[in-house]
Amino acid sequence: MKRILVLVALPLFAATPEQQIREVLNIQVAAWNQGDIPAFMDGYDKSESTTFVGVAITKGHAQVLANYQKRYPTRDKMGTLRFSDIEVRQLGPDYASVLGRYHLDRSTEGGGEASGIFTLIFHRTGQGWRIILDHTS
Amino acid sequence: MKRILVLVALPLFAATPEQQIREVLNIQVAAWNQGDIPAFMDGYDKSESTTFVGVAITKGHAQVLANYQKRYPTRDKMGTLRFSDIEVRQLGPDYASVLGRYHLDRSTEGGGEASGIFTLIFHRTGQGWRIILDHTS
Repeated sequence: MKRILVLVALPLFAATPEQQIREVLNIQVAAWNQGDIPAFMDGYDKSESTTFVGVAITKGHAQVLANYQKRYPTRDKMGTLRFSDIEVRQLGPDYASVLGRYHLDRSTEGGGEASGIFTLIFHRTGQGWRIILDHTS
Repeated sequence: MKRILVLVALPLFAATPEQQIREVLNIQVAAWNQGDIPAFMDGYDKSESTTFVGVAITKGHAQVLANYQKRYPTRDKMGTLRFSDIEVRQLGPDYASVLGRYHLDRSTEGGGEASGIFTLIFHRTGQGWRIILDHTS
């Protein structure tokens, strides 16, 4: 019994920063596709300085969450999220950048297909790797 | 005479990372406004992994330079560049992010006014602070 626990637990502790970051992204996608924007937002650092750059610049975890909820008020508008072409680049021990593409499969009523490119900056926090800046275009 | 040299030289050696990064940006703007795209590109790391994210993703210092030269073939098309709302954030000792806005004052024939938001990632290299990723939208 003890041996099984060790075998199961080991991969968690041995995960590289890149694996941990990819796992945060996977959890975000799963949360989005369950219609759970607050859980999706857990990937972002819960800080006043957390920054989202889209058409405008938004500062603060709460404000970024509010904007997502305003822009994606229904499951139809949220569609089904998928990331691709993910490239993780370590920036010293405690920071990393992620370049990637997002794809939103959506009904015509939901707003239709959408896609774009994002640059994320991750910081290793006490809660794990979290997004401190998201530039999506 | 010696004292004057010391007074002039001191600020260069005492410059903080943020001051050094802002100076790179100032030199880029001056180069652009002299119509010198290669000098503007000196702000970017001379690496195959240097990345520009615009409508598409471009990799490599030479390719980013080629794209700028293709997109801005004349002084008219280059217009007059100005950065504003610059925010520098240190990411450990050797990396930093810069959030800011660009403004291009241009004649109608040159393509008209243009502006946007950029996120830069800087790396402290042997040549000084250099841009390793530029996401402009």
